[in-house]
Amino acid sequence: MAVGVGAATMLGVASDGRRPTLASAPAPAKAWERSAGGVLPTYSLAEVATHTTVEKGVWVTFRGGVYDITTFVQNHPGGVDKIMTAAGQSVEPFWSLYRQHLQPKSTAADGPVPKDHVAEILAPLQVGWLDPAEMARQKRSAADDNDPYAHEPERHPALKLISATPCSGESPATLMSDSWTTPNDLFFVRNHHPVPVLDDQTFTLEVSSLGGNVRSFTLAELRALPQATVTASLQCGGNRRGELNSVRKTSGNAWGLGAISNATWTGVRLVDVLAAAGAPSDEETAEAAGVGHVELEGVDGTTASIPVGKATSRSGDVLLAYEMNGEPLPPDHGFPLRAVVPGYVGVRNIKWLRRVSAQEEEAHGVWQRGIAYKMLGPDVTSADGVDLSKVAPVNELPVTSAILVPQPDAKVAAAIDEGAPASTVEVKGFAWSGGGRGIVRVDVSADDGATWHTATLGDGSEQPRHKAWAWTFWEADVPLPAAVAAKGATKLVCKAVDASHNTQPESVAAVWNLRGLANNAWHRVPISVVPEE
Amino acid sequence: MAVGVGAATMLGVASDGRRPTLASAPAPAKAWERSAGGVLPTYSLAEVATHTTVEKGVWVTFRGGVYDITTFVQNHPGGVDKIMTAAGQSVEPFWSLYRQHLQPKSTAADGPVPKDHVAEILAPLQVGWLDPAEMARQKRSAADDNDPYAHEPERHPALKLISATPCSGESPATLMSDSWTTPNDLFFVRNHHPVPVLDDQTFTLEVSSLGGNVRSFTLAELRALPQATVTASLQCGGNRRGELNSVRKTSGNAWGLGAISNATWTGVRLVDVLAAAGAPSDEETAEAAGVGHVELEGVDGTTASIPVGKATSRSGDVLLAYEMNGEPLPPDHGFPLRAVVPGYVGVRNIKWLRRVSAQEEEAHGVWQRGIAYKMLGPDVTSADGVDLSKVAPVNELPVTSAILVPQPDAKVAAAIDEGAPASTVEVKGFAWSGGGRGIVRVDVSADDGATWHTATLGDGSEQPRHKAWAWTFWEADVPLPAAVAAKGATKLVCKAVDASHNTQPESVAAVWNLRGLANNAWHRVPISVVPEE
Repeated sequence: MAVGVGAATMLGVASDGRRPTLASAPAPAKAWERSAGGVLPTYSLAEVATHTTVEKGVWVTFRGGVYDITTFVQNHPGGVDKIMTAAGQSVEPFWSLYRQHLQPKSTAADGPVPKDHVAEILAPLQVGWLDPAEMARQKRSAADDNDPYAHEPERHPALKLISATPCSGESPATLMSDSWTTPNDLFFVRNHHPVPVLDDQTFTLEVSSLGGNVRSFTLAELRALPQATVTASLQCGGNRRGELNSVRKTSGNAWGLGAISNATWTGVRLVDVLAAAGAPSDEETAEAAGVGHVELEGVDGTTASIPVGKATSRSGDVLLAYEMNGEPLPPDHGFPLRAVVPGYVGVRNIKWLRRVSAQEEEAHGVWQRGIAYKMLGPDVTSADGVDLSKVAPVNELPVTSAILVPQPDAKVAAAIDEGAPASTVEVKGFAWSGGGRGIVRVDVSADDGATWHTATLGDGSEQPRHKAWAWTFWEADVPLPAAVAAKGATKLVCKAVDASHNTQPESVAAVWNLRGLANNAWHRVPISVVPEE
Repeated sequence: MAVGVGAATMLGVASDGRRPTLASAPAPAKAWERSAGGVLPTYSLAEVATHTTVEKGVWVTFRGGVYDITTFVQNHPGGVDKIMTAAGQSVEPFWSLYRQHLQPKSTAADGPVPKDHVAEILAPLQVGWLDPAEMARQKRSAADDNDPYAHEPERHPALKLISATPCSGESPATLMSDSWTTPNDLFFVRNHHPVPVLDDQTFTLEVSSLGGNVRSFTLAELRALPQATVTASLQCGGNRRGELNSVRKTSGNAWGLGAISNATWTGVRLVDVLAAAGAPSDEETAEAAGVGHVELEGVDGTTASIPVGKATSRSGDVLLAYEMNGEPLPPDHGFPLRAVVPGYVGVRNIKWLRRVSAQEEEAHGVWQRGIAYKMLGPDVTSADGVDLSKVAPVNELPVTSAILVPQPDAKVAAAIDEGAPASTVEVKGFAWSGGGRGIVRVDVSADDGATWHTATLGDGSEQPRHKAWAWTFWEADVPLPAAVAAKGATKLVCKAVDASHNTQPESVAAVWNLRGLANNAWHRVPISVVPEE
């Protein structure tokens, strides 16, 4: 371990004496830059990454400094769960989301500057510096041109990566309830190939109708069409697949509940682009011309199609989007242009969109006609002999919901004495349904489904019930009867009802399917119960 | 018991000797009319109605004759279940549906005439005559003008009446699988008031837009608009409510599974009528004019409304129908005009339609804003304190399915020896979902849901998946493992998946609600198993 120079006391906060510092060093002009004063050890990224528990010490980094925040974790105003998401990593990507930590305009070229009270907390906790040489090596390695994944964008460390190449990353459950629209950096990622490196100045979209009529659009030409904005949640067809593996192995990413996120998308309506290209742009005309589907193709080669009724319906709200939450699309989400097909499974929302074509039939390829998005019965353990052309592709997904607060295995204090009035558990989560069907009710149970309590619907509940493309947040104070609490553990459960009055099935066993699609069984979260003091 | 004159041998079939007949009487010109020959006892309708079991004898009547068909029941080519539906009643209404019993054109004024082979079977089974005086009294009584229900139409005896005044009658489960479109006489009936007696010559429909613009249409004027035909199933929101009462009492008719039926409706599109009346007839124009809903009012005072998007969408297929299965609407189904709102709960399909009006808000009244069609949570045992204006009305119903064959408590023969190959049970039923969402799969179990088998979809499966207004029939040969069969009883179960990949929840407990709406829990049919010979 090398010995470096510490900046811990340079903010005028006295050292706690546990660490070697130079208390007499003068404060530099930029407090968070490595200065010549002080002596602190140097750590590798790998070493920092092992410090993620209270037992081993919770470490984070900020601008090259390493901090042991173990003693602070319990006092974090944003909650223990949230700060622990950054354990073993840099806090910078988190503070760029939770900007209350930073001084205004602190994203200048010289780096983020914490607010004074944050700096006062942080300074005495510094235990070392990151090794600058190792950080430089890491950057060079990522830029290796022989690697098809050399140009992958930097990803937020809070994304729960299931696979890096291609990237599959979940939105972190601990942060999902913080914001109804998911920050771009925390939006789940599901790529099938390396992220294409595209230039929005030279980018063109090709649009063709059945007769072979083709028109190209530059991004500027698309931007000149009427702008439309839609807030829509996207969900991977395999969200919550991991739970199905407890019944029998499925194929595909073993997603938790984080393969769903919500954003406000801005772009142009597909129906307006079809009209501008001279293609049939209403259902009757299109069907009369023999058009049954509109095919979407990405630069990475992924293709899918949507029925012409959805593609041409103004109330279907299908967009070709160039902005996500008010910013240009990030590379992971389709820069410079993607399809947003509200109410449809994620895979139909083709990213890096280069071609839109009217077709008689649905798209060819695994994403549309293959097994990838075909849901077989719970008795079908092999696709051999199944005529997939007879099986409907997954387009709209069923009604679903999940508990975000508390997290699994949380400790909850409750009255356990016989005859005591029931304590309540504060439960929060999201609910969503495909096809724009709004959420009309969420039922929550603190006794594994024996009794239910109607939740209060929050953000998202004011959407039109037939065009509720975005999820609905909900919360409930759920009674936890003393007799249940006395057992020391219970399961919280939620289930939602959508505008079609569909609801969720009880168990994963009955929705199990070979590809692990559309798991919408009741969401159960085990918690332990400790006696109320 | 009076003694009458029998016609039993008049068809030239020898008597079985158990009954007094005049074997020597000459055959009259009309064999099924009461003749002067023969001596048979006279029975009351009430007495016939007690003969509905093999133990007591299975009796039916035909053109005033009483027949003991006990010995024939097992030999009925159409099956025991079907013929037993007529036990204790007249077979005439059944034979008018199952016309293979009758000679062609036998509906002449002189009454139905059976085919020769039917007559040969029936004749020797005659045991008496109905009392003509009692039949005449019954007719007079029904015509009492002081009774608001004096003019109710005659109903098919196979309708399972839950209430006669107003009429609530189920389609009989034993006959539902016989025909994909339900015969008009067997279509379930749900009236809220006496059936209005209307004259199609003087009938008018009033159509108004928001500005107060009103236009009246005669039936002839409506018929002059473009004709449209749609096959759509209608389902009462309370279908299968009876099962919920096993959890806790609900309010309303304790329907079995027969409050759903399917018909081909012919009439004019609502959107064309709105246009002809000068009212806004596309969603954008209507919404810009402040129209949110289209209200429908029946002559009986029942009102409901549908969202303007559904009302004006050409693909929504909303009809004002004047024909049902190629015949004028029967009085019980809205003669001379009704709304057909495909994919919506039965109550929105207003019968005896007299007024259509564009409105800003949904209709007032119990059917739209009241508790009648509001689905509360499983924990809500009283509507006191519930703000019903915040609760969505039931419009689209969730995916459902039911087993029609075998019927509950049927005896099924199966292999029960350990290690024997599983026998199979032939299971048939229907599946349907609201909103036009087609049925993409039905899973069937012969072991109460432990294992599943994918059914074969039949009639209805070729409908477009986003406009599948009619139910889908299905059947499956479901393996019944010997170990299960050996227990002597099991439960058959079915559950369906619709095009949105929603499926049915397992248990009635979790979908229980105060009003008993939208029960779509797995449908379970207990059967007993006897060892295979």
